[in-house]
Amino acid sequence: MPKQVDHEERRIQIAEALQRLTARRGLEGVSLRQVAAEAGMSMGLVQHYFKNKDEMLLYALEHRAKQREARIAAKVTATGDPSPRTILRTCLLELLPHDKTTEGDYLIGIAYFVRALADPAMAAVFREGVPDVFRFFADMIRQAQAAGDVAATVDPDQEAAVLWALADSQGSNILLGHRTAADVVSTVDYYLDRLFTPGN
Amino acid sequence: MPKQVDHEERRIQIAEALQRLTARRGLEGVSLRQVAAEAGMSMGLVQHYFKNKDEMLLYALEHRAKQREARIAAKVTATGDPSPRTILRTCLLELLPHDKTTEGDYLIGIAYFVRALADPAMAAVFREGVPDVFRFFADMIRQAQAAGDVAATVDPDQEAAVLWALADSQGSNILLGHRTAADVVSTVDYYLDRLFTPGN
Repeated sequence: MPKQVDHEERRIQIAEALQRLTARRGLEGVSLRQVAAEAGMSMGLVQHYFKNKDEMLLYALEHRAKQREARIAAKVTATGDPSPRTILRTCLLELLPHDKTTEGDYLIGIAYFVRALADPAMAAVFREGVPDVFRFFADMIRQAQAAGDVAATVDPDQEAAVLWALADSQGSNILLGHRTAADVVSTVDYYLDRLFTPGN
Repeated sequence: MPKQVDHEERRIQIAEALQRLTARRGLEGVSLRQVAAEAGMSMGLVQHYFKNKDEMLLYALEHRAKQREARIAAKVTATGDPSPRTILRTCLLELLPHDKTTEGDYLIGIAYFVRALADPAMAAVFREGVPDVFRFFADMIRQAQAAGDVAATVDPDQEAAVLWALADSQGSNILLGHRTAADVVSTVDYYLDRLFTPGN
């Protein structure tokens, strides 16, 4: 079905044009016309695929989340150690902006977040998506507890919130330049060392 | 010096008008003209006090930070227990958007953060301010270690980064509505319980 693939590629081209513009000047300052110019397409063609910026941004967010999941799976496989700790560490590092791809993911997430603050319909995407990640993190911690790698006194749901905060907030530390990616990764590893201590 | 006080009050009125507009529609969509209308002043008067939106926002950010510090000091005093743990908990809770005042602080911080992502001069405010908070948190943890309330194996600088992340990231959880302020406070208390355990 080559036609199907073309449509998907066009959507990705448009979403990535939006994202490049957003990263340079923030979402609010970007018009559909500018997105069309950046993507090298006519306004009409862009509007054939997306009714407005919000639809584009949601598509970009979901497209990039799928790509990120695939990257995480590939990296975990490459370590040859699909343990809960390796999976959690790989997820956290992939959520942090440490190269062009992850920086793009982070910036589009911020743009969407800012939009969601003023729009309950857009906030629903976070209300559904983030708890899924929390549950996944908590499940990993429960598996590690069952294996005796994390103490039984640890609360998996609370720890999931802490781990999410470590990725989410520390990304901004890197982008604003007051901590390096290496500093932030050292905090993630420090924290995982503390968490994965059977004795406490 | 009643004239001096007037000037300061005008600046605060303008900054708070900007903040109300920012909270409703994001910083990018707000013009100087709208700020003047919201503050009930002429454009000329607003421009007498601030050259542009960036100056207003920086003033608002610094004004609110001073107010927050005063609130934290008053709350710590009210507990009658100026221990490192009480001080840290009070700081973290005051950074979280749990009422109109703290929600306003959080939103203006987000608006400034988004601006700083695209403007290195504005990012400098975070590069100077956030490390100060990290150092303060780390000092509190060192005092608690000296008193035997936190284990010597804990790394105060790494823990400062974790505590900051808990306030910074969890604020967005509340605003987007997938966790309540009570959920988030329970995570802060869970984490402080773990940190303030002399034995590990």
